[in-house]
Amino acid sequence: VTASPSLHPSDGVRHSPISGVVVTNADVDHVVGLLSLRESQPLAVYATGRVHALLRQNSIFNVLNPDLVARREIRLDEPAALCGQDGSQSGLSVTAYAVPGKIALYAEDSGAGSNFGTRPGDTVGLEIASAREGRRFHYIPGCATAPPELAARLKGAELVFFDGTLWRDDEMIATGLGVKTGARMGHMSVSGEAGTIAAFAHLGIKRKVFVHINNSNPMILDDSPERAAAVAAGWAVAHDGMEIVL
Amino acid sequence: VTASPSLHPSDGVRHSPISGVVVTNADVDHVVGLLSLRESQPLAVYATGRVHALLRQNSIFNVLNPDLVARREIRLDEPAALCGQDGSQSGLSVTAYAVPGKIALYAEDSGAGSNFGTRPGDTVGLEIASAREGRRFHYIPGCATAPPELAARLKGAELVFFDGTLWRDDEMIATGLGVKTGARMGHMSVSGEAGTIAAFAHLGIKRKVFVHINNSNPMILDDSPERAAAVAAGWAVAHDGMEIVL
Repeated sequence: VTASPSLHPSDGVRHSPISGVVVTNADVDHVVGLLSLRESQPLAVYATGRVHALLRQNSIFNVLNPDLVARREIRLDEPAALCGQDGSQSGLSVTAYAVPGKIALYAEDSGAGSNFGTRPGDTVGLEIASAREGRRFHYIPGCATAPPELAARLKGAELVFFDGTLWRDDEMIATGLGVKTGARMGHMSVSGEAGTIAAFAHLGIKRKVFVHINNSNPMILDDSPERAAAVAAGWAVAHDGMEIVL
Repeated sequence: VTASPSLHPSDGVRHSPISGVVVTNADVDHVVGLLSLRESQPLAVYATGRVHALLRQNSIFNVLNPDLVARREIRLDEPAALCGQDGSQSGLSVTAYAVPGKIALYAEDSGAGSNFGTRPGDTVGLEIASAREGRRFHYIPGCATAPPELAARLKGAELVFFDGTLWRDDEMIATGLGVKTGARMGHMSVSGEAGTIAAFAHLGIKRKVFVHINNSNPMILDDSPERAAAVAAGWAVAHDGMEIVL
């Protein structure tokens, strides 16, 4: 979240335009970036109580100086106004909602059955809204299935960023990269009858963008048949430096 | 540590030539890289008991799959043969020795007095030796002072990599980057009467290389007077891709 778009790295010797971070999951790929932010940069970190609990259990996140970094809990299905650590308004609000997913890998409880101790709030989607312009979009980088309530929520949306981790559920195994299916990792696949392209085909979403794409997913290659299939189905594939104006 | 120099990234889809990592301190800049290594890459992590304890307290490091990543304790002043996770010999041994320093920032105990609860083993230097060729060098990326026993240990060494964090003790404050002195952060400075250049001037070390250089240290710039002064004093400044043959 860039709370003040007018800020620029040139505004200070170590200035960062990042005033806030909204974390959707406590997995390494979602939280380790926090440790690369400047230690003395004012920041607000928004997450569910479940995710904050894992951050608190890991003392390494105390490098985020408590005097400068506010940790704010967002409650499921309640819009929260995003503010900088100093209370400066961003003009954005965020509503987190539970999506099918998984507790962070490092917190899996192997004795807790097939869901490894996952609870609501471990993985969320976000609806981000601009108070001024009234525009809104969804950001869902990890999602295991698309149940009817999620489809209903996204129906007719102007813009949705969605989990593009895998093309096929057995991709990691087939390519020899791992032993886990997408389902085991908490990611639905892009292709197939139960895949994302099929699930989103009739939701009337104006712009659909895949994010969080694993390097095993052939869709990430510009010239692959899989990329062509995604584009033909109305999807874009996110890339570094991508800018979208709503 | 590259245990098998003949290995190459092309050896496998996600192969990494890194067979082992020796951690000299539990601070973020020394340990967060572990979280960027492939989750399913066999690896041996060597550290003192003090550093391993902090890694164990932070469950996020459990993304290093215990089936594939061996955590091995090295004892101060006892040479340890470096082996891959599968027991493959590297031909290298490492001896860790306590150097003046500080406990990791996120584990500081503000109630423990001026050293914040620092104990021997929180910061170490390493002597790395090749069993075959009998060559050896020292790697000391963080060091707060150079007491006589450290000088004696390094005297006449063929190669020493040493903490080049700061040029001046008050550099972070003077440049407006922070509020801490080098001494507070556990780093002796390069310049000055108690600085590294002075401390190493008469130790007869054949090659001296500064590493761990903060971006506030003007020595990092090729064309700075500080760089010229370091080079004139017989030091090299490490850079990405640097290779040294002993």
